[in-house]
Amino acid sequence: MGRLLLRCADRPGLVAAISSFLTGAGANIVSLDQHSTEQTGGTFMQRTIFHLPGLTAAREELEREFRERVAEPFEMDFRLTEAAKPKRVALMASREDHCLLDLLWRNRRGELDMSVVMVISNHPDLAEQVRAFGVPYIYVPATRDNRAEAEQRLLELLRGNVDLVVLARYMQILTPEFLDAIGCPLINIHHSFLPAFIGAAPYRRAKERGVKLVGATAHYVTGDLDEGPIIEQDVVRVDHRHAVEDLARLGSDVERVVLSRAVLWHCEDRVIRFGNQTVVF
Amino acid sequence: MGRLLLRCADRPGLVAAISSFLTGAGANIVSLDQHSTEQTGGTFMQRTIFHLPGLTAAREELEREFRERVAEPFEMDFRLTEAAKPKRVALMASREDHCLLDLLWRNRRGELDMSVVMVISNHPDLAEQVRAFGVPYIYVPATRDNRAEAEQRLLELLRGNVDLVVLARYMQILTPEFLDAIGCPLINIHHSFLPAFIGAAPYRRAKERGVKLVGATAHYVTGDLDEGPIIEQDVVRVDHRHAVEDLARLGSDVERVVLSRAVLWHCEDRVIRFGNQTVVF
Amino acid sequence: MGRLLLRCADRPGLVAAISSFLTGAGANIVSLDQHSTEQTGGTFMQRTIFHLPGLTAAREELEREFRERVAEPFEMDFRLTEAAKPKRVALMASREDHCLLDLLWRNRRGELDMSVVMVISNHPDLAEQVRAFGVPYIYVPATRDNRAEAEQRLLELLRGNVDLVVLARYMQILTPEFLDAIGCPLINIHHSFLPAFIGAAPYRRAKERGVKLVGATAHYVTGDLDEGPIIEQDVVRVDHRHAVEDLARLGSDVERVVLSRAVLWHCEDRVIRFGNQTVVF
Amino acid sequence: MGRLLLRCADRPGLVAAISSFLTGAGANIVSLDQHSTEQTGGTFMQRTIFHLPGLTAAREELEREFRERVAEPFEMDFRLTEAAKPKRVALMASREDHCLLDLLWRNRRGELDMSVVMVISNHPDLAEQVRAFGVPYIYVPATRDNRAEAEQRLLELLRGNVDLVVLARYMQILTPEFLDAIGCPLINIHHSFLPAFIGAAPYRRAKERGVKLVGATAHYVTGDLDEGPIIEQDVVRVDHRHAVEDLARLGSDVERVVLSRAVLWHCEDRVIRFGNQTVVF
Repeated sequence: MGRLLLRCADRPGLVAAISSFLTGAGANIVSLDQHSTEQTGGTFMQRTIFHLPGLTAAREELEREFRERVAEPFEMDFRLTEAAKPKRVALMASREDHCLLDLLWRNRRGELDMSVVMVISNHPDLAEQVRAFGVPYIYVPATRDNRAEAEQRLLELLRGNVDLVVLARYMQILTPEFLDAIGCPLINIHHSFLPAFIGAAPYRRAKERGVKLVGATAHYVTGDLDEGPIIEQDVVRVDHRHAVEDLARLGSDVERVVLSRAVLWHCEDRVIRFGNQTVVF
Repeated sequence: MGRLLLRCADRPGLVAAISSFLTGAGANIVSLDQHSTEQTGGTFMQRTIFHLPGLTAAREELEREFRERVAEPFEMDFRLTEAAKPKRVALMASREDHCLLDLLWRNRRGELDMSVVMVISNHPDLAEQVRAFGVPYIYVPATRDNRAEAEQRLLELLRGNVDLVVLARYMQILTPEFLDAIGCPLINIHHSFLPAFIGAAPYRRAKERGVKLVGATAHYVTGDLDEGPIIEQDVVRVDHRHAVEDLARLGSDVERVVLSRAVLWHCEDRVIRFGNQTVVF
Repeated sequence: MGRLLLRCADRPGLVAAISSFLTGAGANIVSLDQHSTEQTGGTFMQRTIFHLPGLTAAREELEREFRERVAEPFEMDFRLTEAAKPKRVALMASREDHCLLDLLWRNRRGELDMSVVMVISNHPDLAEQVRAFGVPYIYVPATRDNRAEAEQRLLELLRGNVDLVVLARYMQILTPEFLDAIGCPLINIHHSFLPAFIGAAPYRRAKERGVKLVGATAHYVTGDLDEGPIIEQDVVRVDHRHAVEDLARLGSDVERVVLSRAVLWHCEDRVIRFGNQTVVF
Repeated sequence: MGRLLLRCADRPGLVAAISSFLTGAGANIVSLDQHSTEQTGGTFMQRTIFHLPGLTAAREELEREFRERVAEPFEMDFRLTEAAKPKRVALMASREDHCLLDLLWRNRRGELDMSVVMVISNHPDLAEQVRAFGVPYIYVPATRDNRAEAEQRLLELLRGNVDLVVLARYMQILTPEFLDAIGCPLINIHHSFLPAFIGAAPYRRAKERGVKLVGATAHYVTGDLDEGPIIEQDVVRVDHRHAVEDLARLGSDVERVVLSRAVLWHCEDRVIRFGNQTVVF
């Protein structure tokens, strides 16, 4: 099973051109989603799942032909992946265990289509629990004071080794230099309904503002704190009887569900970034 | 703008065949959704929105050619409609006004893509409120005792005149004979989360069972009471402080939202029936 | 039926003192809710519903005795109201009809415990629809340029005549001077999940930010724009297929539900303000 | 901190009598919730949290006095517990791990106010994962054929040793004889929105019926399968693209949240049973 994701300026004939190419190559289209940002003149995005016997052997050739015959004429960005090759993923966390353990547990159940190659933390606390899942736990101390050094160490571990980094409540800031150098997307979970309560201590600030719902947001990481493209959000109802600790407890259930959906969708190649937004097919 | 809905046995080449036909006919595919019920060997369903200048004039010819060159070879059921031609809709209600007035009000705002040609009720109560929307209100008394006569009267009013009948809390049973004769689909709103609380007095029974959520279900009407294909459902939280009247009050908000979504989706040709289920694109 | 709302510094014996007073006065406590902001040393709030035959005649005396024997010794703020006396309410709107008509319609159904004494708008558009409910519609032109004059006119209409003003999508800013002079609370509906998208054009900004849920917030009006105590909030899911107009359409369903809940709760004396927060019993 | 739960026929003076008793005994009422099923003549239920120094030593005496001076005169059922004494809980499961591990994990985090004294399963599969939490895992084979013997073994393990049994996806039926003999309440999680899809294979039947939401229900166990008093329910949206396995995956997130809330509320003495319903304060 192959997955073809693409993005280009919209114009007539795109769906037919892509479908004909795939059918001509012997592929059967299993599923097709597309979206145009405007009635005319916008951006066109499409995700196609197709069945093609012998895809692994034929893939390079297929990719080359698609580029020449479709992608270049239509000036497309595209990505061709194989469903059978799960993404290699690194999870990063600090002290909070709920998002991290939930992802490991879902992956053990087979819910997420990924291979967790390592867990990195700036605290040693969760080593035993992580290793019980058969996953390496690497402790990389990181504070404000050793940021450059810590990021250097992270790059050595991650660059080239993973297709995705998931910040599962990793509480250190990553520099734009690090994000430029890492060479793969990062997904972060923020414990508020963005753009409300950007930055530190969102549950405390939610309590102070007296909101009636608290939420969580999974987004791609960009150089701007909590400003990257949102993949998924959800909320839970709270009331005056809930203290800040209750908000954190109720919110942590939302965090782990929201993050796991975002990671699943990314690993299934369902997400296309577009400006500072996402399309999730 | 044209809309092409179709359903057939799944097999390779369907998307390409349809896309090529439309592109060849000079149409630009604006949006395309498709779904297969199984990886292989299931039922294939597709909704395509396309732009074709001069569609109204060309439609019959287009339909004939699509039938010959695509639909018949692939043994498809299909429907070709024009977005510019809103569905002709009859609304039927008894005494409860919330669903009826909500649909009229949304339609006046331009939220629903339909033309309400008449409102029929078995009670005279709501005549004034309905006529304020500029819609004819026709009172057709209906009880257990005059069912055949009443249905005869309804058929005279509806058959050939409408593309859709919406039962917006119409509390009389319609016979299978009527449903066979009417010649268009009917959408009903049931005031429970089906299949829970099929039949009469669902809010009272919900209170007695002590459920923590009450809901509503919009479904196509079939000969089996409350058993037709579900189009949309939603729920709202309740607790022990709510009496049956509160459940009815809270539930009526869900009813009108759920029914309006179902009517909108039907009028936009988003719904394909499949066995006793629906696909909503 | 009487309603006693109160707020004071927490200390032992409060519930017993209040209960004993009411029981001693011949009242039967029908319902009692209380909340303390801290385990000890916080603020105590309580809402008590009681049955007392002949309450209307006895009320002044009861209020005086409660003040002397309970409220003053415990330094309480309190409010004693009769359920049989519905609040006198003015609704204010601009051009959008959904919140305004929804409140009028719910009130006609008997869902809201209020008497709508007038509707005020800075546009003449909705006069006919409002008057169909048997409610006076008063057109008070208001723009940036005539603000002082318009507010003067509003004060003449409202001061002393209403117990509550509901801003049901009234799009003019009200000055702190007006809020000081009005002498009754105001409830506003803001079309975002506050504190996200404070200010103008929240749906457009929500689309630009790419959020996956849009919401609405009902809050008491204070001098700080969109910063007053929140009474109720809710959200609805959206996705990339929704344009700004769809967000506005979906959001308007949330707006009217959220505002109607807030108005109902206020009219039932369920809301106690506390700092910039609310307790809703 | 003490918790007083009670239920009796409603009549004037109840709140005052209870409040005065507690205040007279030197207790400070921290929180009080009450509910009457009818305006007059219904059932009265109340939950009071109070602070009383030296409660553990004084408890027997307090209980005796409350019985004599309040409970017997008013014919109350009541329960007096200490917050400092967590409930002793047994968890039972079959092969599915999600509810079981979630409860163990939440308890380790300190979210649930309980002491898990044992896990019992009719399968050996989850032993290692459970024991990693420091909790005994006891394998009691149970099938249709050895039911009497298995239940005898369960009674030996449970009777007198636990205050609550949680069926966290335990897939064997328990006989009315067992339920009579166990001497403590049992909470079950059913993987549907009851009363829809009572009995086996609810996700498969939900798919067949084409519902648009799937849910889960936590309820007390009675002799009637899936008919006991409901404590909590919730739902999640699904659509035509979800296969039965997806419904099970999405539903399992709802199951674990719903069950954990029900267990938390029971352990905090928030739930009062009343007929076949519950009041959750």
